[in-house]
Amino acid sequence: MKSFLIIGIGEFGKHLAYKLQEMGNEVCIVDSNKSVVDALSNDFENIYIVDCMNIAALKDFGVPNYHACIVAIGQNFQASLEITSHLKDLGAKYIISKANSDIQAKFLRMAGADEIVYPEKDIAEKIATKCDAQNLLDYLRISSLYSIYEVEVPKSWIDKNLLELNVRKKLNINVIAVLSNNEVNFPNAEYVFKAHDHVYIFGNNNIINKLK
Amino acid sequence: MKSFLIIGIGEFGKHLAYKLQEMGNEVCIVDSNKSVVDALSNDFENIYIVDCMNIAALKDFGVPNYHACIVAIGQNFQASLEITSHLKDLGAKYIISKANSDIQAKFLRMAGADEIVYPEKDIAEKIATKCDAQNLLDYLRISSLYSIYEVEVPKSWIDKNLLELNVRKKLNINVIAVLSNNEVNFPNAEYVFKAHDHVYIFGNNNIINKLK
Repeated sequence: MKSFLIIGIGEFGKHLAYKLQEMGNEVCIVDSNKSVVDALSNDFENIYIVDCMNIAALKDFGVPNYHACIVAIGQNFQASLEITSHLKDLGAKYIISKANSDIQAKFLRMAGADEIVYPEKDIAEKIATKCDAQNLLDYLRISSLYSIYEVEVPKSWIDKNLLELNVRKKLNINVIAVLSNNEVNFPNAEYVFKAHDHVYIFGNNNIINKLK
Repeated sequence: MKSFLIIGIGEFGKHLAYKLQEMGNEVCIVDSNKSVVDALSNDFENIYIVDCMNIAALKDFGVPNYHACIVAIGQNFQASLEITSHLKDLGAKYIISKANSDIQAKFLRMAGADEIVYPEKDIAEKIATKCDAQNLLDYLRISSLYSIYEVEVPKSWIDKNLLELNVRKKLNINVIAVLSNNEVNFPNAEYVFKAHDHVYIFGNNNIINKLK
């Protein structure tokens, strides 16, 4: 179990708080707006109406005790910046701050953020990569050369096994796992691909458009 | 090369347009606000000031010709909803719409969106999982049981090889790849882990907190 201080309850802060609590962590949530605090007060034990731009008020939370402090403010950039800076001055172990643009990200880093969360950009890059590629469902980028891809089974693979397809030699890819009817398989050479399988592939970043 | 119609230039729409164009795709961008269009007009050939809530104006874009239409509007939910519905009526092949809340996601689906992008929630879940786990850098979820994880090399692994560590037997995990000094390695049994390595692991969702 870890403990987290989340400042700002927008959509991002709210989902983060629920998810971290669901995972068994201790969360403390703070927002300056009474109505947004009231809306969540039944679901969280430690939730407070405080203006954290006031460093004296913020100090009372024992900032250095948290594993991480997350500045999840959406609209008021000056508040994000000042609170990030206050947290740094108060000795926070790790600060994650939310940015809405490249320039915000830059200033939040200067103010002391250890990590920037920039949802609009992160998701835009992910969606662009998915739109660009055939069959791509999701991916984990390893380097400029390699990624791990989750793809819908290529049509030419259906009803064939890995031995016949010989994709390791032909395409220089490794099939890591297959999700078939909600069951994860670790395919051996005899595994026969079925329609609707999701295939997890490790390979070169150029390969993804060749899987048809 | 594919073609995409992007409606709405906020941070999400902007990053999406740049990334898709950079990947060699054709993008057509539309926004009702002259100043946001002007700001990008040097970088894109097909960029227009049009109010897409007017279905007659939207029709002129030849909606069915695009591989996907993306409704990337940030603030005006009624516009997102109406434009999603117009795109559906005009025969769009695939519609991706951006939501800012669960209820927005629900209505956008009802209006005809094939896929919902909900950056605040997606990134909140990712950050929560990273905050909760030790060493975790990123991950690709396969099912409720398995994931592929990118972790900082566990301290106890440094200067040891896979044969000594015997993690496949001891922890039931597979090491897929190692990123070491920006180079991707496919570790065999003799690979000796170095400090700062990023290790890509396939395994059970419970394992991640045991890697220390």
